[in-house]
Amino acid sequence: MDLNNFFSAKSIAIVGVSRDPNKVGHVIFRNFIDGGFHGRIFIVNPNADMILNHKSYKNVADIKEKIDLAIIAVPAATVPDVIRDCAKKRIKDVIIISSGFKEGGNFTLDKRLELLLKKYKIRCIGPNCLGCFDAHTKLDSLFLPRYRLSRPKEGGISFVCQSGAVGSAILDLATEQGYGFSRFISYGNAMNIDESDLIEYLGKDEKTKVICLYVEGIKDGRKFMRVASKVSKKKPIIAIKGGVTEEGAKAIISHTGSIAGSAEIYKGAFEQCGVVIADTLSDMFRFAKILEKCMKPKGKRIQVITNGGGYGILSSDAIVKNNLDIAKLSDESKKIIKKLGLTTENPLDLLGDATTARYKAALEMAINDPNVDIILLIVLYQTPLVTTDIVDIIIESNDLKKKPIVVVSTGGEFTELLKKNVESNNVSCYMFPEEAVEAIATLVKYYRSNIKE
Amino acid sequence: MDLNNFFSAKSIAIVGVSRDPNKVGHVIFRNFIDGGFHGRIFIVNPNADMILNHKSYKNVADIKEKIDLAIIAVPAATVPDVIRDCAKKRIKDVIIISSGFKEGGNFTLDKRLELLLKKYKIRCIGPNCLGCFDAHTKLDSLFLPRYRLSRPKEGGISFVCQSGAVGSAILDLATEQGYGFSRFISYGNAMNIDESDLIEYLGKDEKTKVICLYVEGIKDGRKFMRVASKVSKKKPIIAIKGGVTEEGAKAIISHTGSIAGSAEIYKGAFEQCGVVIADTLSDMFRFAKILEKCMKPKGKRIQVITNGGGYGILSSDAIVKNNLDIAKLSDESKKIIKKLGLTTENPLDLLGDATTARYKAALEMAINDPNVDIILLIVLYQTPLVTTDIVDIIIESNDLKKKPIVVVSTGGEFTELLKKNVESNNVSCYMFPEEAVEAIATLVKYYRSNIKE
Repeated sequence: MDLNNFFSAKSIAIVGVSRDPNKVGHVIFRNFIDGGFHGRIFIVNPNADMILNHKSYKNVADIKEKIDLAIIAVPAATVPDVIRDCAKKRIKDVIIISSGFKEGGNFTLDKRLELLLKKYKIRCIGPNCLGCFDAHTKLDSLFLPRYRLSRPKEGGISFVCQSGAVGSAILDLATEQGYGFSRFISYGNAMNIDESDLIEYLGKDEKTKVICLYVEGIKDGRKFMRVASKVSKKKPIIAIKGGVTEEGAKAIISHTGSIAGSAEIYKGAFEQCGVVIADTLSDMFRFAKILEKCMKPKGKRIQVITNGGGYGILSSDAIVKNNLDIAKLSDESKKIIKKLGLTTENPLDLLGDATTARYKAALEMAINDPNVDIILLIVLYQTPLVTTDIVDIIIESNDLKKKPIVVVSTGGEFTELLKKNVESNNVSCYMFPEEAVEAIATLVKYYRSNIKE
Repeated sequence: MDLNNFFSAKSIAIVGVSRDPNKVGHVIFRNFIDGGFHGRIFIVNPNADMILNHKSYKNVADIKEKIDLAIIAVPAATVPDVIRDCAKKRIKDVIIISSGFKEGGNFTLDKRLELLLKKYKIRCIGPNCLGCFDAHTKLDSLFLPRYRLSRPKEGGISFVCQSGAVGSAILDLATEQGYGFSRFISYGNAMNIDESDLIEYLGKDEKTKVICLYVEGIKDGRKFMRVASKVSKKKPIIAIKGGVTEEGAKAIISHTGSIAGSAEIYKGAFEQCGVVIADTLSDMFRFAKILEKCMKPKGKRIQVITNGGGYGILSSDAIVKNNLDIAKLSDESKKIIKKLGLTTENPLDLLGDATTARYKAALEMAINDPNVDIILLIVLYQTPLVTTDIVDIIIESNDLKKKPIVVVSTGGEFTELLKKNVESNNVSCYMFPEEAVEAIATLVKYYRSNIKE
């Protein structure tokens, strides 16, 4: 299915732009103006002539120019009429923001809309959704003010989220934490474009490196499995399923009107088609980070380098718990360690008086050691002999692209400053060793099951 | 054991203050000056007369004034001599920062020091540690520069950490995240003051509401169990054990020279004496937050209130997974919900157009409902009709102290602003529903096993 217009439309009509700055249509319009959208925007309001210095049309069919995409934010009962107008204007793609369909118990209206869309062959995201955001084209139908919801920078993560509010909250958080996004889609009731269509489309999007998915119900299980199996071989799909308990499933019906289905069935199906399962939203983004940024590891032997002994111990524990291996260093590496005056090997404790030079030597050693597949580099920036140019050493080592390097740093302002610098240079950083090791386990698992050696 | 001098000493001698600003003793001295310590500070360096405009003594015994506590940061081999000098000066409490004892393989030196301390009846924290930090008195022996390691504000958490670097990194992070601390102790090799002594002491400290513990090896198991059983009845102890796997245990020997012991034994022992077990460092602090701030719940029936349907569903899932109950509302509450025009009950979805007034009504309803023990309040600040005065409503509801209220908010800058405001008024806030529910489960578990009804 060609969904390009939902992200790259050159001319857009927003139907239902109120004068009231708090109303949905108005906020969407404002976001298009403020967000730097490059295409043309037309607005429709039967009761206004001008809004924010833009001409308002009485009806979408009155617009002379070609319209690629309509964003519909009128009361539910009026949506069918707008769809007829869109058909008249030969608009083939619409985002219906409006809620009040099956999720609100209005099954008749729901059915009517569905039949109309079918009749006119109109592709629709929604209803009952936030719609789309594209970090590249700045197409942005999210009806949340920019001062409350920051928009993320460009990057490799695309996020498909059935829930609107949750999706936007996560997007906001991810922006704060420096994640980069390609596309965000809140697809609500999934009337005629569902999660599988979106995944298939994102599978072909070159800018999308990782697909994240929050789903409440999957409409067509077979279709999902066919699509996900294919796409997950090309790029990782990380999924979280809402409503895995009976109580959670009950709550879904009034939310997106989906049928939840049993937790076990979902889990089995996800695993079978190579989808990475996240139990929590924080897991999902931690996994996305490593899958977006890290290269394929050759194996699962990990070398831990640290300046905090306790973190070395917790890392060893986590490596064993996650079924990964603690690398056994080569004789060459052992000699280097001796020369550095150190007594441990793995975890290699560079001690509290670790210098940047000592870090550099240890990193080089691990990069060159054929017995090491992945490097877990713990840098606690609190100790004074670690100078700030360690940032460059980490980035340069990572840029060599010899093996995955995952960094752990814990701390406040000073640490955050250095960490952001490292992270924005494509190194994946974590707060705690346990989180980093779990992410590494996900990286290993994804490449094991999806890529043929 | 009276450990007051380690936190409230009025006069302190720092032995081993170098002129070199990068050296440990110098950094400690500087931190005392910059940190606003109220007591008197004396410094000892046999090769200097003045350092940072302070008179330097050749020997600690040369100081005329009474010294409550000596902080020793000289090379390991010199430590025994300094201890003899301290004995001469009748100093009874010392923090030995220096490393190079049993953890470095120097067993003879280690034994010599131990015997000397015994002979002179000197209480010692360390060696091989960062020592103590007291947020109230500003006594601060951590040898990490303040620009790299922020010091936390006053609060109810005390953190006992065998590892130095890890402890300080966590302290730094916790500061950034707004946690308040009473005391922090990095006790290293635990030569003659061990974790049990510290826990017993903190059990009596009125400012300490929650005790967090990172431990690699427990010296005297029976003593620990006796102390922990007693203290955990008065206030929560949350513990994380490093070296629970064979590989992790191996790494401990070169770190603090402890013997790790089996994971199962620790787990059983912790549970038996009412210690809350944290699997990861992030769990530990999330648990500490709820235990510090929340009152004792009457039961485990939770009411979820949300403006994001997806979060309602994920909360229901998490409640069931954590063996908590979804509250069944009273008829009175059901009437209120109907009057609000809402169709769900628990999770109660206030919908994307939720107003502050709707939140207020829902909160009041849940507070007054006898079928509700704990309120999980999800507020996504991205939606425009939630005005900023919701902050006051949350704080006021929490101040009523009728039942625990736990808040979930996810987002960027705008959300953080409101969240910090809520949090600094003693409301415990979390990023994701799953984290909040796990924390609630910990709260319920702590009060069930520790408090007699």
